[in-house]
Amino acid sequence: MPLAMQAADLYSFLEREFPQVGHMKLEIAELDEQSIRLRLPVSEQHLRPGGTISGPTLMWLADLGMYLLVLSQIGPVALAVTTSLNINFLRRPEPVDLIAEGRLLKLGQRLAVGEFMFFSAALDEPIAQATLTYSIPPRQ
Amino acid sequence: MPLAMQAADLYSFLEREFPQVGHMKLEIAELDEQSIRLRLPVSEQHLRPGGTISGPTLMWLADLGMYLLVLSQIGPVALAVTTSLNINFLRRPEPVDLIAEGRLLKLGQRLAVGEFMFFSAALDEPIAQATLTYSIPPRQ
Amino acid sequence: MPLAMQAADLYSFLEREFPQVGHMKLEIAELDEQSIRLRLPVSEQHLRPGGTISGPTLMWLADLGMYLLVLSQIGPVALAVTTSLNINFLRRPEPVDLIAEGRLLKLGQRLAVGEFMFFSAALDEPIAQATLTYSIPPRQ
Amino acid sequence: MPLAMQAADLYSFLEREFPQVGHMKLEIAELDEQSIRLRLPVSEQHLRPGGTISGPTLMWLADLGMYLLVLSQIGPVALAVTTSLNINFLRRPEPVDLIAEGRLLKLGQRLAVGEFMFFSAALDEPIAQATLTYSIPPRQ
Repeated sequence: MPLAMQAADLYSFLEREFPQVGHMKLEIAELDEQSIRLRLPVSEQHLRPGGTISGPTLMWLADLGMYLLVLSQIGPVALAVTTSLNINFLRRPEPVDLIAEGRLLKLGQRLAVGEFMFFSAALDEPIAQATLTYSIPPRQ
Repeated sequence: MPLAMQAADLYSFLEREFPQVGHMKLEIAELDEQSIRLRLPVSEQHLRPGGTISGPTLMWLADLGMYLLVLSQIGPVALAVTTSLNINFLRRPEPVDLIAEGRLLKLGQRLAVGEFMFFSAALDEPIAQATLTYSIPPRQ
Repeated sequence: MPLAMQAADLYSFLEREFPQVGHMKLEIAELDEQSIRLRLPVSEQHLRPGGTISGPTLMWLADLGMYLLVLSQIGPVALAVTTSLNINFLRRPEPVDLIAEGRLLKLGQRLAVGEFMFFSAALDEPIAQATLTYSIPPRQ
Repeated sequence: MPLAMQAADLYSFLEREFPQVGHMKLEIAELDEQSIRLRLPVSEQHLRPGGTISGPTLMWLADLGMYLLVLSQIGPVALAVTTSLNINFLRRPEPVDLIAEGRLLKLGQRLAVGEFMFFSAALDEPIAQATLTYSIPPRQ
């Protein structure tokens, strides 16, 4: 099944709806029918004292990444919303680019469930793992 | 047991360690040995298109609130970190002040577990519920 | 709003659909429009070596309790199913009756979210906390 | 690093500590330093009316599987306990053998975090996904 929105469509959507995201230079490195790979350049605003990337930055990126993954499948459906998020913080992130690898575990009529694994560009072990549930409104 | 840090101590701590939080006028409305009540004035930066408070704002406030609750009990212990967060988004927040009510479910030697319920100032039903786990380093 | 099913209806439902539960003498101690209180007599089959109630027993009771709470509100709707469960184990249960206090955080058209706190009859601090999400099928 | 316990050791441990598990013919199909693969033959006691495997059976197997995975790494350490479990039910299980694939996301000094994906022997899409946290007591 072809994607409802390609990476270029998602960038346009972000610029229009979330202009503040554009300034972070978030990169959609890969996108296919099941998965997405995002890269967030390290920047001052995401660092905690001590030079680590903050937990809320990871949660924000999981939430946004899941939204992009669902949009890429079903298009810009109004009212699709996150209903739950569970995250485990595993290791201290390095102050380098943040990689988020997401994949759909389920895309149903009413619910989508996805998983994101986070990596520091410099590491091969995950720094965090998140699962998210999305509610999809009835489609006409 | 007296609190290790009172609200005034927590404000000073926030100003020193998280100067950006000070600008949000976050208020510690109540604090005792088991619980904390926070009020976050509504502001442009936390709103989504459509005038709702964003999910990441709730997650950020749960993470910060749990940190303050643990600090108030054990003092400014280095290396205490969130290890997991689970959040359920229940209702669309109103674009009004956000209330977060947190309480400790457990404060052990190594782990603290807390729960936060979120309310819009205008509503009596919760808009979100979160549970968080905190790892506490060995104390000398 | 009156309950769709009272405690007596729920007992009949359990006997019919889950005959093995009847043998455990599970008691519905309280039931109203928002909450349920269950008591499970301690029994050999729920104990771990060392005399503690097993984690799977708590998870089973959370799952069953949420089902009963949803049924009491909407009646015996086919295909209502648990979609997620999150549980935090807080303290070692005592080998005494297990108390589960559940309440609905949300009962929407499509999703119900509830929370359960578990207690040993002998203790006043919770031994576990669980949140559950239930998917409700479209009603005719 | 060699395993602290091989599959044969885990079977002996189960027979000794959880004799009721032996009767279920749970099979440890694969085991290495990071992962475990379990197969549970379908049996009457795990089925719900309608012929589906019950949610509590999946949660019980996730809990047991994580325990075996941690044991295989650190040996039969007393007092290692599950501290949290999060599970997403994705699809209706078929009434066939249940496959659980677990892997360690982190094995720290104090906490272990693992993930389990569940499959029906007949399907290639997951029927459930769980993450678990384990507390490891200080080692002498």
